[in-house]
Amino acid sequence: MSRLFMFEKPLGMRDTLPNLYDMKHSIRTVMATEMKQWGFQFIETPTLEYYETVGSASAILDQQLFKLLDHEGHTLVLRPDMTAPIARIAASKLLKDNMPIRLAYSANVFRAQQREGGRPAEFEQIGVECIGDDTISADGESVALITSVIQAAGLENFQLSVGHIGFVRAFFRQILGTEERVEALTRYLYEKNYVGYRMHVGGLALSSIDKQRLLHFLKLRGGEEVISEAYSLIENDQGKEALSELQLLWEIITDYGQEKSVKFDLTLVSHMSYYTGILYEVYAGNVGFPIGSGGRYDLLLEKFGKPSGATGFAIRLDRLLESLGMNEPIEQVICIVFSSERRKEAYRLAQEQRQIGKKVVLQDINGVKDIDACSNQYNDITFLVGKAKEAMK
Amino acid sequence: MSRLFMFEKPLGMRDTLPNLYDMKHSIRTVMATEMKQWGFQFIETPTLEYYETVGSASAILDQQLFKLLDHEGHTLVLRPDMTAPIARIAASKLLKDNMPIRLAYSANVFRAQQREGGRPAEFEQIGVECIGDDTISADGESVALITSVIQAAGLENFQLSVGHIGFVRAFFRQILGTEERVEALTRYLYEKNYVGYRMHVGGLALSSIDKQRLLHFLKLRGGEEVISEAYSLIENDQGKEALSELQLLWEIITDYGQEKSVKFDLTLVSHMSYYTGILYEVYAGNVGFPIGSGGRYDLLLEKFGKPSGATGFAIRLDRLLESLGMNEPIEQVICIVFSSERRKEAYRLAQEQRQIGKKVVLQDINGVKDIDACSNQYNDITFLVGKAKEAMK
Repeated sequence: MSRLFMFEKPLGMRDTLPNLYDMKHSIRTVMATEMKQWGFQFIETPTLEYYETVGSASAILDQQLFKLLDHEGHTLVLRPDMTAPIARIAASKLLKDNMPIRLAYSANVFRAQQREGGRPAEFEQIGVECIGDDTISADGESVALITSVIQAAGLENFQLSVGHIGFVRAFFRQILGTEERVEALTRYLYEKNYVGYRMHVGGLALSSIDKQRLLHFLKLRGGEEVISEAYSLIENDQGKEALSELQLLWEIITDYGQEKSVKFDLTLVSHMSYYTGILYEVYAGNVGFPIGSGGRYDLLLEKFGKPSGATGFAIRLDRLLESLGMNEPIEQVICIVFSSERRKEAYRLAQEQRQIGKKVVLQDINGVKDIDACSNQYNDITFLVGKAKEAMK
Repeated sequence: MSRLFMFEKPLGMRDTLPNLYDMKHSIRTVMATEMKQWGFQFIETPTLEYYETVGSASAILDQQLFKLLDHEGHTLVLRPDMTAPIARIAASKLLKDNMPIRLAYSANVFRAQQREGGRPAEFEQIGVECIGDDTISADGESVALITSVIQAAGLENFQLSVGHIGFVRAFFRQILGTEERVEALTRYLYEKNYVGYRMHVGGLALSSIDKQRLLHFLKLRGGEEVISEAYSLIENDQGKEALSELQLLWEIITDYGQEKSVKFDLTLVSHMSYYTGILYEVYAGNVGFPIGSGGRYDLLLEKFGKPSGATGFAIRLDRLLESLGMNEPIEQVICIVFSSERRKEAYRLAQEQRQIGKKVVLQDINGVKDIDACSNQYNDITFLVGKAKEAMK
């Protein structure tokens, strides 16, 4: 290979070295345990899916998909999220007797990056999906579970913001009338571009009362009181229905005892077309992007021939670790350096130590070119070298 | 999407449903624990690598690689094995002070299938690599570790066959002379086509003594006695050196107390060009393919600019599970069905049960369309429904 490429990785691809690997593993285990105790069952899906089956049904932009052709000329994609593959499995195998199913996953997903910007093109998501349950209890369970899971991971400082895409659309439709105008204004919220939103509103041909309402809407963030404030702005039934769902969600979260981590943010738009009802994002103080997000997506299962309500969330493991700001654990590894005369003695000692749970490297002294470097690498090193019966230590 | 594609997965791609997922998880955990106790450190590498960096250095045939182009026109591959990516990391980041490093992984790898034949195109390998240690102790450690790991996974009936590619080549070179003729005969061993081997030998222009030797070679399988038998066939130094390595390996494995699981098979050729010394395969009685394989590959690190000895193995998790013939575990999940009046009571009960380690599904009765089906699905179901204070059970 050329020297240029010798150590290179594709754009956005990363190695995970031992310390980070161990941190990821322990956090993943804690989170998975919590999800299992809530009755969610883990599954795994293929890394590659047909574009026509899963790629086009996913929430990710086409230009972010990694695509390739199989031998028969079909387009394959590296899964960009887990929700569409899980919908495929649920629709084809698991949805029986109209029973709600609760599934969980921890999996790497893939999003092509256009240029070097420090954003990973492959990262791990841990999440759940509850499929076949239309009740707000299912939304409440998702919110309570993501909160519990993040707490179990050890993060104390985080904020969960809940909104309702049905409310946003109903409110905008009431004032703006056409879908095109609703779409245009919604995009500013999606991009969290509130300056652009204000300017756009300023330029609309509307009464000053309606403009004021659209600006007032931006302030619908906070505790339970936000709901009654929102009622004062909305006139149509869809909007009121969305607010009553949020009201019920608040009661449910309070019954779970999780209301302290939750705030309303009625301006929240996590995705342009994916979600259909309650949605939420989790932020940690020190990380610029959401560490997790979720919501209700009642139209996805229909694409797989089984119309069903569904709600779920995904947590970004890399961002969660960043927000935890974990110190690298000090791995205690014992090293036993031996020469052939005392090989058997070394093996026996290693076995004893391993049986009581210690991590032991067995190293033939002939495999070490620099004994000093070896001694420096381990804080506990034993030499069983030469014919002497006693170990040098 | 078209109905044809609605539930389809690409050739060789599989879903892992909850029971199989849990079995894989528990076996993987046991094996990883053993590897860590031997001082091997887990790492993760990207699913996608540059073809020029890792694809071309891997042991896998080009036609089995999944390839795609990135935005800049470089060819990427889905990693076909973990050895080449680990060599890349070791050479670029980890090899310091000439110290041997011990790395482990559990990762999915990808091999394109040309037609439907039940072979997976994506499967999980669990393995280790010891890089920078030229001693036979490192080979012995690999053999002892793969044995311990498979035993830890619960498999009792398996056979580890050890060979030495250096011996095969030295012996063939001694009799056949040219590399081309060596290559041609070696291929029959690689394909385990012993009938073809005999016919090929029969057709060679050789003395009957040499032909007899080539046929005698096929019988070099068995215990320690195989080594002295092999000495009687070999004349050149490389061949004798290989046999003395195998002799030492046998002593090492005996010191580890693992000699009962090990047999010699000097006809073993696991790969056409990858291995350079001692190599081995693990078979379980009831599975047609090796569940694991490994060996020494002293030339790979040179491709990454850091010539170093290296040895390692990989275990196929799917085949190991098949050989274990495990019964699906019976997952004990409690279901609490509640109506809104008793929601809080249901949450409290669920929390209590989860805290003592039980798995509890909380289900709003309004999310269930068929109560009988729900009752049949769980063997422990509690109804907290209506205003009554006492639970129906």
